[in-house]
Amino acid sequence: MKANRDEALRRLRRIEGQVRGVQRMVEEDRYCIDILTQLAAIRAALDKVGVQILDAHARGCLTAAIESGQSEVAIDELIESLERFIK
Amino acid sequence: MKANRDEALRRLRRIEGQVRGVQRMVEEDRYCIDILTQLAAIRAALDKVGVQILDAHARGCLTAAIESGQSEVAIDELIESLERFIK
Amino acid sequence: MKANRDEALRRLRRIEGQVRGVQRMVEEDRYCIDILTQLAAIRAALDKVGVQILDAHARGCLTAAIESGQSEVAIDELIESLERFIK
Amino acid sequence: MKANRDEALRRLRRIEGQVRGVQRMVEEDRYCIDILTQLAAIRAALDKVGVQILDAHARGCLTAAIESGQSEVAIDELIESLERFIK
Repeated sequence: MKANRDEALRRLRRIEGQVRGVQRMVEEDRYCIDILTQLAAIRAALDKVGVQILDAHARGCLTAAIESGQSEVAIDELIESLERFIK
Repeated sequence: MKANRDEALRRLRRIEGQVRGVQRMVEEDRYCIDILTQLAAIRAALDKVGVQILDAHARGCLTAAIESGQSEVAIDELIESLERFIK
Repeated sequence: MKANRDEALRRLRRIEGQVRGVQRMVEEDRYCIDILTQLAAIRAALDKVGVQILDAHARGCLTAAIESGQSEVAIDELIESLERFIK
Repeated sequence: MKANRDEALRRLRRIEGQVRGVQRMVEEDRYCIDILTQLAAIRAALDKVGVQILDAHARGCLTAAIESGQSEVAIDELIESLERFIK
């Protein structure tokens, strides 16, 4: 769990750096297509963090909820959360 | 479960009709932007079926797998499947 | 242009077949994860048609609109259309 | 153009703050579902910047390229860039 958290933090710090990089590109009037390429890369990196958090959630909270017979609410909120992501 | 399956089928038949509609639009040389709008609508409809199937899976197979102590493989394949969707 | 249209139609017919395939999978109570995999494939195929139509639009109508000094409206509707797609 | 650039920068700084916010959420072991909700919000914000940059590109470089009869390469790279985004 701790390894998972550290990995997510490492990725998020990298994403923060990428976002700052894009700010510089905009300030320096860099070519739009290069900026778009960079934005697409950040989005892909965000999705990877999302999947990682989802994985941790499924193995942790979701499994615990189902094992303790409280799957209903847990699955409701998982699906709602995925709906926001899958689009 | 049966209601869920019937609902998924109803949606999929509607999507099939929408895909045929876009074929006609292409054959009749309709305006590209209108075709794109229609394609985006089909994609949104597909995502809704996806979420519905996911919901059924979480409440059915996934819950059963976790309750019988076999969460590992079940969560692995769920996450893999989501990775293909979330992008 | 005609080649482009034929190619789009060919892809759309294939997508129609894939959607019918998923209907059968649902009717036969196939494993949810396999259905989700198939839905993700259809979505990717739809996106490819979308990009192809977009390409045709950019080379055709959009170029014509810009060349005739009417870029404003043409770009407005292109961006609006992309907004529906990019999400 | 300058207004557009300032607006993009403003949004990117806000996104940077959101990414730092998620880092804190992870450090504080906040509930996964809340983290996912926040990640989905950041993705939506990134997409908005992407559309804005695309808009600027279409009105600027792309229009200039088409007007000067060099639409081929300009449209090729636009479509390639969109392909990375539409998925």
